[in-house]
Amino acid sequence: MVPSNQWIKIKAPATVANMVCGFDILGFAVNDPYDEMEMRWVARTEQEPSIVIINLDEYNLPTEPEKNVAGAALLALLEEYDKTNIKFEVKINKRIKPGSGVGSSAASSAGAVVGANYLLGNIFSKDDLVRFAMNGEKVASGVKHADNIAPCIFGGVTLVRSIFPLEIVTLPSPELFVTIVHPQIEVRTADARSILRQKVLLKDAIKQWGNIAGLVAGLMKSDYDLIGRSLEDVIIEPVRSILIPGFDALKLSCKQAGALGGGISGSGPSIFMLSKTDEIAKAVEKEMHELYAGMNLPHHTYVTTINQKGVEILADFI
Amino acid sequence: MVPSNQWIKIKAPATVANMVCGFDILGFAVNDPYDEMEMRWVARTEQEPSIVIINLDEYNLPTEPEKNVAGAALLALLEEYDKTNIKFEVKINKRIKPGSGVGSSAASSAGAVVGANYLLGNIFSKDDLVRFAMNGEKVASGVKHADNIAPCIFGGVTLVRSIFPLEIVTLPSPELFVTIVHPQIEVRTADARSILRQKVLLKDAIKQWGNIAGLVAGLMKSDYDLIGRSLEDVIIEPVRSILIPGFDALKLSCKQAGALGGGISGSGPSIFMLSKTDEIAKAVEKEMHELYAGMNLPHHTYVTTINQKGVEILADFI
Repeated sequence: MVPSNQWIKIKAPATVANMVCGFDILGFAVNDPYDEMEMRWVARTEQEPSIVIINLDEYNLPTEPEKNVAGAALLALLEEYDKTNIKFEVKINKRIKPGSGVGSSAASSAGAVVGANYLLGNIFSKDDLVRFAMNGEKVASGVKHADNIAPCIFGGVTLVRSIFPLEIVTLPSPELFVTIVHPQIEVRTADARSILRQKVLLKDAIKQWGNIAGLVAGLMKSDYDLIGRSLEDVIIEPVRSILIPGFDALKLSCKQAGALGGGISGSGPSIFMLSKTDEIAKAVEKEMHELYAGMNLPHHTYVTTINQKGVEILADFI
Repeated sequence: MVPSNQWIKIKAPATVANMVCGFDILGFAVNDPYDEMEMRWVARTEQEPSIVIINLDEYNLPTEPEKNVAGAALLALLEEYDKTNIKFEVKINKRIKPGSGVGSSAASSAGAVVGANYLLGNIFSKDDLVRFAMNGEKVASGVKHADNIAPCIFGGVTLVRSIFPLEIVTLPSPELFVTIVHPQIEVRTADARSILRQKVLLKDAIKQWGNIAGLVAGLMKSDYDLIGRSLEDVIIEPVRSILIPGFDALKLSCKQAGALGGGISGSGPSIFMLSKTDEIAKAVEKEMHELYAGMNLPHHTYVTTINQKGVEILADFI
């Protein structure tokens, strides 16, 4: 490959990690919201940096490669790439608000490495790309987790069976409609992790793995009722939901409106609900809106579907 | 229905509970060994007992219905049956050794309620039968667990997603060959339960549910390698395996002989291994035999397959 100097356009989807009972292992990508990125690679002289980040949005995220999630992911990729005379230029237009709990950092990390791999002639596997992008998650939250990165790169519902060594399993799923509400409060991922207890009761763990097994079976059997019954978290949600205003009431009213189930997206504050039809998903959105409007809490909502493609290169070259 | 006075013949398969990573939730039935039972119902006078148990084997198990696992299961069934003027007579020929860890008590309980239901015109659902048979497990081990009962009644691989309320999910599986070794030592289920820690590390629980999700996905995708990689237990096996002589060495040599993986069957002392072919399953049996022969430890082995039928009524009437 030779530097092309030409820009490609990248679309990187938001993702919902944990999927209620699957803390740290399950996640899925959604069609809305998503980040837009542009990327190219050019020849580099010895004095130049190998990565240049340009922010096109208003979030003022750091542009030093080591402190930027896309930069950190690309640095990991370049470490395993045998040529050093190249420079990646990355323009990022974040449409997924940082800190919203729907994989904003994962979208930047995953988008960057999928874009870089495309420019280099797809020399790395998707598993490699997940590994590189996890370095971005480390910058964002201090932990190399893959439950947002994996669905962002593979699309659909993914299982991180093992993190070291990394193993991603894609899970087929029936058509599902997703409603997401992002209440405009801050929940830091590090805080959401620190309040978790390091030990859990074996009897609770058994309940949890019954639900995880049920959820995987429900997705693969396209059994909506089984999916709904399995969307129960007896370990993480009871602790974390106290950080999110109105969580219990919101969940109850969404289920009464017909949602199969749902819970905290990642470490929050966003909450997601899964529904069988677009109609129900919109009724669920109405419940979310009414509850947070009643609390005078500013919020965004999305009604979307599961994204089956993951990060996309939109046009060969712009 | 009227009493028939005629005997039916029942075949109740052995079962492997836990399936390594799925403690208390997963299990499967095997074609060998199995229990043989005969059953009939007759009119009962007020002075007569409603259940008569006759042992055809040498194990001298109690015949008082309340103390016998089949009896306790039948008592639970009769409690929900609206007529009281009937008597069940049950002959039991146990071919699954009690205490061997392959669901000997579950076979008696499940066989009895499936037989009774057949005689009564199949008025109860399989879920009901599991619920009744769990009363037999309570007699045997003090705990109403369903991870042997469910596969014994449904056949195949089963998931107990939830115990209260009871929900059984059947899981499709590819052809799998099963090798079982029963070293002639005693491990009491109650002891095997009492040595477990009541709390587990969250990070270990996360590893465990990654493996459970991987195992369910592997079974449903017929992905043998994924099944093999997921057959890992970081919570129960490290504690319980100390009760079984030579466990680590046996597991290692079986995997070297080509087994996908395996572990303790139920609470032990039997150990099971899954293989992709009959040839490998027999090579695994050889390893088991050599190891325990070398330790002068008497043992039985079985090479079998997953039983997809569960308890069978062998002939309408004998």
